Amino acid sequence: MKKFEEKTYQTETIYTGKIVQLDVDSVTLPDGHTSKRELIRHPGAVAVIATTQEGKLVLVEQYRKAMEKSIIEIPAGKLEPGEEPKACAMRELEEETGYTTEDLELVTSFYTSPGFADELVYVYFTDHIKPMDIQPDGDEDEFVEVMELTLDEAVQLEKDQRIHDAKTAYALLYLQLKQK
Amino acid sequence: MKKFEEKTYQTETIYTGKIVQLDVDSVTLPDGHTSKRELIRHPGAVAVIATTQEGKLVLVEQYRKAMEKSIIEIPAGKLEPGEEPKACAMRELEEETGYTTEDLELVTSFYTSPGFADELVYVYFTDHIKPMDIQPDGDEDEFVEVMELTLDEAVQLEKDQRIHDAKTAYALLYLQLKQK
Repeated sequence: MKKFEEKTYQTETIYTGKIVQLDVDSVTLPDGHTSKRELIRHPGAVAVIATTQEGKLVLVEQYRKAMEKSIIEIPAGKLEPGEEPKACAMRELEEETGYTTEDLELVTSFYTSPGFADELVYVYFTDHIKPMDIQPDGDEDEFVEVMELTLDEAVQLEKDQRIHDAKTAYALLYLQLKQK
Repeated sequence: MKKFEEKTYQTETIYTGKIVQLDVDSVTLPDGHTSKRELIRHPGAVAVIATTQEGKLVLVEQYRKAMEKSIIEIPAGKLEPGEEPKACAMRELEEETGYTTEDLELVTSFYTSPGFADELVYVYFTDHIKPMDIQPDGDEDEFVEVMELTLDEAVQLEKDQRIHDAKTAYALLYLQLKQK
């Protein structure tokens, strides 16, 4: 759908980093006026809602520099170039939690910040996970701690803002709805 | 919580725009190694889950340059400097939809992309809205179309990826759970 399309007449790439690229697009608006759009280009990401046999949710705690605090999230990670989202979800689940699965179901996908970023997150679900025999290596600059919590415990952590991100907030509603 | 804290020893501000600022922080990791973090600084935002007397969800369609398509979202917008989130939610509801309310309840707040951005979205709910007598002016470079849909219709639009962002996906689960 192209309703209210904003046509680009110039793109300035301000920065190309390891994770994000920042473009400033000059655009013509539907009324003929012009404006600028600051756009973050991101490779996309995956997230996995994984529950154990006992019905506990698998979460990881990690430090998030952007907020200068550690928060507790469902396992997630960026897509590598050319990587298929489901394969990425499997890799991130294994690397971050030490669990694997043969049963990943796509729940949905969503843009996290449509106003300024093209990051698209694919969300998967599995309630069939098993511990891996050998723990794979994760990213060398990533430190995470795995935890397994009941849904009630996780909802309480959300109230305490120890869980505080969109994909994990989505996951908690998803599981609550599944239980009804 | 500071678990796995990454200490900044240098910040380079690459770009300061109207909406985002891009910093690249050089950090010391928990194991003593160093790395860089690309960080988008964002003023934060609000979103409003608003339902009519008939139980329809109020949505707005707008063009999103980052994805080069128009998508359908719950009303939302950026915080102005010093603006209180609830006042911002009221303003955005009025500007984008022509409805007003005296009854906005904070549902939750979440970081949209904790891996690279500090954008925090405050999500509000109201099921008491009424049309305004005089339609306020919105942002001069923002073009939106209001629609009112049943929850079933909105869920179908999500399957069709016409609804395709995190806060609206959250809103649909929130309303489904409320109905149970």
